[in-house]
Amino acid sequence: MIGGKTKLFGLVGHPVAHVRTPQAMNALFEQNGLDAVMVPFDVPPADLSGALGGLLRIGNFEGAVVTVPHKMAVLELCRDLTPRARLAGAVNVLRRVGEDAFAGDILDGEGFVAGLTTAGHSVAGRRICIVGAGGAASAIAVALAEREPARLTLINRSRERLLALHERLASRFGELDVGIGEDVGGHDLVVNATSLGLRADDPLPFDPERVGPGVLVAEVIMTPEITPILHAATGRGAAIHPGRAMLDGQLEAIFRYFSADGRIGRRQA
Amino acid sequence: MIGGKTKLFGLVGHPVAHVRTPQAMNALFEQNGLDAVMVPFDVPPADLSGALGGLLRIGNFEGAVVTVPHKMAVLELCRDLTPRARLAGAVNVLRRVGEDAFAGDILDGEGFVAGLTTAGHSVAGRRICIVGAGGAASAIAVALAEREPARLTLINRSRERLLALHERLASRFGELDVGIGEDVGGHDLVVNATSLGLRADDPLPFDPERVGPGVLVAEVIMTPEITPILHAATGRGAAIHPGRAMLDGQLEAIFRYFSADGRIGRRQA
Ligand SMILES: NC(=O)c1ccc[n+]([C@@H]2O[C@H](COP(=O)([O-])OP(=O)(O)OC[C@H]3O[C@@H](n4cnc5c(N)ncnc54)[C@H](OP(=O)(O)O)[C@@H]3O)[C@@H](O)[C@H]2O)c1
Ligand SMILES: NC(=O)c1ccc[n+]([C@@H]2O[C@H](COP(=O)([O-])OP(=O)(O)OC[C@H]3O[C@@H](n4cnc5c(N)ncnc54)[C@H](OP(=O)(O)O)[C@@H]3O)[C@@H](O)[C@H]2O)c1
Repeated sequence: MIGGKTKLFGLVGHPVAHVRTPQAMNALFEQNGLDAVMVPFDVPPADLSGALGGLLRIGNFEGAVVTVPHKMAVLELCRDLTPRARLAGAVNVLRRVGEDAFAGDILDGEGFVAGLTTAGHSVAGRRICIVGAGGAASAIAVALAEREPARLTLINRSRERLLALHERLASRFGELDVGIGEDVGGHDLVVNATSLGLRADDPLPFDPERVGPGVLVAEVIMTPEITPILHAATGRGAAIHPGRAMLDGQLEAIFRYFSADGRIGRRQA
Repeated sequence: MIGGKTKLFGLVGHPVAHVRTPQAMNALFEQNGLDAVMVPFDVPPADLSGALGGLLRIGNFEGAVVTVPHKMAVLELCRDLTPRARLAGAVNVLRRVGEDAFAGDILDGEGFVAGLTTAGHSVAGRRICIVGAGGAASAIAVALAEREPARLTLINRSRERLLALHERLASRFGELDVGIGEDVGGHDLVVNATSLGLRADDPLPFDPERVGPGVLVAEVIMTPEITPILHAATGRGAAIHPGRAMLDGQLEAIFRYFSADGRIGRRQA
């Protein structure tokens, strides 16, 4: 129920007709008794700065989820950025800072970890292998590295991106045992963070013969829910963690980001 | 239920904590199966033009109700104005026109007429007396004049405002029998459009001895619901029409203004 004290959040994208985030966030606001609402804002690329500037002039506007095609462009409209948003060169959540500025963060990696945690899987002390070195893989690698795994192994097709990601992680997490590999074997958690599995004729991202009982295989691909690699991992006796959990985890992480500091009041009964 | 195709409307005011219009409009959108939502926008006076400019950059933002303290300032931000908004020097509803402009209108008078109509009272052919010549009286007089009453009589304390309103009506509605009077007697409908009745020690706006059976006495004051003049009119055998109906009528008029031209899509089941 929207009232005069309701705090306002946006989902900024273009187009927005297909988005599901406002529905999910509004359910979370309601379940938690918070007086806030998220509405879609359909903003063409040329209008991004004008729209966000205008929204800052609305006192009860508190922040936004930023999606395609604005995740990179919005970076330069933020006064404060987290190290991980700088690292990714992208922002997917904005929060008002004071009267006329935004802070930006990117919660893809946090979403992946929140999904793992909700499913009862821990990260600390585990030997983890990440396959992929693109945007999703980088975000996941940083979020995992922050949770003190026993070891982090990176695997990727193109060596250039692999080395670049390895260097960023090694320089930022000095204590961490982070290596480059080719074999997913010998890990407790193997993450497919490539785009392989989306299309029916994609090759498998890694050899499923190298996983088995006691190993958890996690996925970033959301459709199909059970990708070929998850199917093969199950056949090998490994546990699996579908890509959908990362999206649900992101919603949780976004909700926490927006409701931090008690900036949203409680809904009146 | 807010989704990616939801059209956005605002209630622009400062402060907005006490407003009830979003709640009422959202109920109307829902009852009518329209995919739209109204949210409060708390906009300080200095930020009005910046906020409205930014909102125009959001493709699914369609319009707003404008309230205290912006009703006059917003006039100069409108590209199109209705004659009645010009006459009143105020705007209480905005609607997007094309990509970068607003049309403005004022629906106080329409709200009064909608309230009468909903209660089953007609205007055409009636002899009507309006007591008052301020903002509310002017808006009501124009809306009634447009519905072809048999006669319109104006009464007001200060002669200057009375003559000014009379002149505006006479010049705009050439065919109309509009006069200046002192006696509410001899009319089918008598409207109290002064501010008298709000405070307990206010004098009555007119002599209730001059109304009786067959006469309808209408009110603009909303609190108390039954003002002293309505109470006295009932005692004289007249029918009464409380001020609350004008507010409900405005909501209806605003809903029609926003949903005109099928600009709001239907909510998906
Ligand atoms: N579940 C969620 O919430 C969520 C969130 C974000 C992203 N995702 C998904 O994550 C996937 C990756 O997104 P992204 O932004 O990281 O994409 P990206 O930056 O383009 O990276 C793609 C990755 O996949 C690898 N790859 C692509 N085709 C390959 C092939 N034929 N053989 C081997 N490796 C191949 C790339 O290797 P190279 O470096 O060699 O090109 C790279 O490591 C997308 O499918 C997206 O849907 C899911
Ligand atoms: N129900 C609704 O939705 C709705 C909507 C709008 C307004 N209203 C109500 O309408 C009322 C009038 O608003 P407005 O904007 O028209 O105010 P306004 O422009 O200030 O006009 C006030 C009117 O009341 C008369 N008046 C005030 N004190 C008087 C007195 N002691 N004796 C005789 N006449 C007196 C004034 O006469 P002079 O010209 O001689 O000063 C003038 O005609 C307000 O109380 C407001 O709450 C209700």
